[in-house]
Amino acid sequence: MRNLKLLIEYDGTGFVGWQSQQNGRSVQDVITAAIAQILRESVDLIGAGRTDAGVHARGQVANFHTRSTMESGRIQRALNAVLPDDVVVLDATDVPEDFHARYSALGRRYRYAISLRPTALGRRYQWYVKHDLNLDAMATVASTMIGEHDFSSFCKANSGVEHHVCTVATSTWECEGSSLVYAVQANRFLHGMVRALVGTMVDVGRGYRTVDDFNHIFAARDRSLCGMAAPAHGLCLEEVIYPGSL
Amino acid sequence: MRNLKLLIEYDGTGFVGWQSQQNGRSVQDVITAAIAQILRESVDLIGAGRTDAGVHARGQVANFHTRSTMESGRIQRALNAVLPDDVVVLDATDVPEDFHARYSALGRRYRYAISLRPTALGRRYQWYVKHDLNLDAMATVASTMIGEHDFSSFCKANSGVEHHVCTVATSTWECEGSSLVYAVQANRFLHGMVRALVGTMVDVGRGYRTVDDFNHIFAARDRSLCGMAAPAHGLCLEEVIYPGSL
Repeated sequence: MRNLKLLIEYDGTGFVGWQSQQNGRSVQDVITAAIAQILRESVDLIGAGRTDAGVHARGQVANFHTRSTMESGRIQRALNAVLPDDVVVLDATDVPEDFHARYSALGRRYRYAISLRPTALGRRYQWYVKHDLNLDAMATVASTMIGEHDFSSFCKANSGVEHHVCTVATSTWECEGSSLVYAVQANRFLHGMVRALVGTMVDVGRGYRTVDDFNHIFAARDRSLCGMAAPAHGLCLEEVIYPGSL
Repeated sequence: MRNLKLLIEYDGTGFVGWQSQQNGRSVQDVITAAIAQILRESVDLIGAGRTDAGVHARGQVANFHTRSTMESGRIQRALNAVLPDDVVVLDATDVPEDFHARYSALGRRYRYAISLRPTALGRRYQWYVKHDLNLDAMATVASTMIGEHDFSSFCKANSGVEHHVCTVATSTWECEGSSLVYAVQANRFLHGMVRALVGTMVDVGRGYRTVDDFNHIFAARDRSLCGMAAPAHGLCLEEVIYPGSL
């Protein structure tokens, strides 16, 4: 059966998250409804990453099987014509029948943006932190995450996964004007992981915790020790990575 | 009397513009109310540029005279504590008594952003143009504006100014990823000028008008000939330029 892959951008501000929920407006439901309107089919839309309420995406990926014979570029344009303006389908492509947006993914890349000053124009996409932050200390703890580690300390309880080991390929803080940006890429992410990491790294940056404290929390595999999760609106799913052919 | 200069950022989406109006929420009124709340004074807040409804600012400048002796940094922080989150005072500084945000300015710099694809995350700050645009043609007409010219063709009727001559220092189009950005700096701008220029340049870019058409419109000094104004939300007042000492 035909399988279509969608590349999706959304502003998470007005959503309860990617995943369909009984109450509230989810990205998954909004796109599923648009597909039903265009293709007259009720499809099962599989997303690569279940972003939480308020989290944005510049490169979410989803797939669905369809009996439609409409050309993929036309489907993309038709979807954008009926979607609300906070969701955009950037691309639609035919993929092999066994492509699965979630299981076929090799990794995901997220970006978390902090503003070091109050900002009117960036307020929907950056977390304003009023403390002075020690970027060197934050970069140090960020670099310790690279490689294969157990991230139990940075996972929401009852996440229902079998293990908490993730392989982190990139974990850096960069200064961009009056913003600090955390870029992280891993094969998988646990529920709430990036926001818990950012919250705890900011604790280190502002001197509320030391680098040693961070290493202790990391090694303890105990969620109760880590800092407050950073707010959702600073986080953006930038890219989902697949094998070269997909 | 003490004179304070404010550097202001705002998201124009929720405003009827800078200037106070009988009906609607203006940036001027919102800041004046915040000053009244903090300093217990009713001040006359003078803005450098009267941005229209929906136009943003990253570097609006305003000044007001006050009897307050509160330190300027404290005034800034106190204002931000009471201002709504779509207006931020980036800086507050004491300036000479005769500084006037509008009359002391040597120039203003605006930026207009176009998105070449639909965008969820940029939709509040970029105009999505679905036509293919010839950047070379747009850059050519942009460069013809540099220098001292009469911009009557790009001025809203009844703007009440004595003449329509502006001296343009910068006028360029640049490609930034999937966006095109117009940067323009001049000693003064007429009402609606940047949006009328952008709208007419986009007509050239999409091939609806030629470069010669543009030059004819420019030379004719007749507002009725120019294209549709580009929408407000792509425009941002980036900077107001003053003599070095201010």
